[in-house]
Amino acid sequence: MTKPAYAAVDWGTSSFRLWLMDEAGGVLAERRSGEGMTSAAKTGFSAVLQHHLQAVEAPANLSVIVCGMAGARQGWIEAGYVDVPALLPAVLRGAVKVPGENAPVYILPGLAQRAAEAPDVMRGEETQLLGALDGAAQSAHQVVCMPGTHSKWVQVSGQTVSGFSTYMTGELFEVTSKHSVLAHSLADAEPFAGDRPVFVEAVRAAFEAPQRLTNLLFTVRAGMLLAGLAPTDAAARLSGTLIGAEIAGGLSSAGSRPSSIRLVASGRLRDLYEGAFDALSLPFSTINADDAVRTGLSAAARQILPLHP
Amino acid sequence: MTKPAYAAVDWGTSSFRLWLMDEAGGVLAERRSGEGMTSAAKTGFSAVLQHHLQAVEAPANLSVIVCGMAGARQGWIEAGYVDVPALLPAVLRGAVKVPGENAPVYILPGLAQRAAEAPDVMRGEETQLLGALDGAAQSAHQVVCMPGTHSKWVQVSGQTVSGFSTYMTGELFEVTSKHSVLAHSLADAEPFAGDRPVFVEAVRAAFEAPQRLTNLLFTVRAGMLLAGLAPTDAAARLSGTLIGAEIAGGLSSAGSRPSSIRLVASGRLRDLYEGAFDALSLPFSTINADDAVRTGLSAAARQILPLHP
Repeated sequence: MTKPAYAAVDWGTSSFRLWLMDEAGGVLAERRSGEGMTSAAKTGFSAVLQHHLQAVEAPANLSVIVCGMAGARQGWIEAGYVDVPALLPAVLRGAVKVPGENAPVYILPGLAQRAAEAPDVMRGEETQLLGALDGAAQSAHQVVCMPGTHSKWVQVSGQTVSGFSTYMTGELFEVTSKHSVLAHSLADAEPFAGDRPVFVEAVRAAFEAPQRLTNLLFTVRAGMLLAGLAPTDAAARLSGTLIGAEIAGGLSSAGSRPSSIRLVASGRLRDLYEGAFDALSLPFSTINADDAVRTGLSAAARQILPLHP
Repeated sequence: MTKPAYAAVDWGTSSFRLWLMDEAGGVLAERRSGEGMTSAAKTGFSAVLQHHLQAVEAPANLSVIVCGMAGARQGWIEAGYVDVPALLPAVLRGAVKVPGENAPVYILPGLAQRAAEAPDVMRGEETQLLGALDGAAQSAHQVVCMPGTHSKWVQVSGQTVSGFSTYMTGELFEVTSKHSVLAHSLADAEPFAGDRPVFVEAVRAAFEAPQRLTNLLFTVRAGMLLAGLAPTDAAARLSGTLIGAEIAGGLSSAGSRPSSIRLVASGRLRDLYEGAFDALSLPFSTINADDAVRTGLSAAARQILPLHP
């Protein structure tokens, strides 16, 4: 096999992904696990990383580039934040080397928005963004939607992040479906698609009246009590409500409405957000989120590591 | 002591309150406990009620009037719903007698709004509302705010409830402060007042931009990470954000803005909502919620029980 040049790691709160990369940015091997920051903080970050490096038979002295929550205060080693407005490639200069490791391990910093009325942070998405915009034609002003546990709506001009806002969409879905009165309505819900009528209607209703968000959430419960709303439709309504309100908020914090939204997503979230944008007749183009983070980590490797010795 | 005429019980999801009443509506004794529907469903509703009746030395054949979640499907016995638009005193005609009890026990029904786009339910608040409006000058159209785990915004014309909407304010405060990333920011938070500057600012920000609700919630976390927001201020910002968005939504679902809002609240919630209305320069008048539910239960007793044999 081609000689491994470095390992790229996306280390989130609840997930770990590692790619063994060659010098040209090709993927030689891949690992995915649930050993995110929360679990690695208990078992040890170095041990988790070494285990996965050995599993792909990485050379002992292989360099590693990490982005995500491993660089948080509760993570492996704090990698700090670069303040916005920030030129995306400048993020790479803030990389922190983990002390005491046999081979070089660099963790990338996050982005911080210190505005008193809208403080915000991201970790991992800045690397995804770097990859998503890498090589793409840079229009004057772009609005990027990066859905997830904490969805990010980012305003980018060329390679400069001018501002961003986090929406707690994924986490609110999680906590309300598990810990609130809505749990009764969602038991045994199955996965649903982004064109499911109940989802589409919920997206539109919340986008039209986002000030009613927590009222619309309660209709998931009332809809079950009064009209027998089934569990999967209840989950679709909950999801559509949160996503519709997020889009209303994301577009409002972006200021002017963009001619097209850049969606950075993959898998199930891609399907749901594409369905939501279609439901609202909002033009968008999609960039694969998995590819984007790997491309971003490769760009970081090219700049930080002595790849061509 | 004056002869007890009946017992009035407000039986919510997580709280139980009983008043021993005389024929004139005077309170002879009171009991409060945490044996709400959730706990009584396990230990037995009849046993909980009998225990508290004995504690106030109620006569064995005393009649009891109950409102609240004891009448829910998961409660003691289902008391159903009266559909809106509904004349408030008509609710009393839907009372259900619990079978198998030695003395008469009546549970009052809730209200249901079956509109497909805004299904909603209430249980307990209809009795509070009956009490709140009892004897008050009935203006043509009123907007009533009843804060709580599930806050209710009710449109009333005379004695008729024309519609209402539930906001999950209290429950979202609970689940996000316990189960979301915000928990890190709120540990050891202390109680705060409705005129605390952070609370007041959060109410205004969310009222101005309710479409950013879940983004504003995340600023509680980012504010701690970037600016050292202290736990009690974090709790105040979370609370103010949810209440500000609720008021924006509640007023929008009421249609036209009322000349004055009727607030039915007591204790801590009264202080917070009065602070929020003041922060937004919204005129309001407050009715004590504890008094209101007792007055409502007394009105029910007068109509349902053979009090003057």
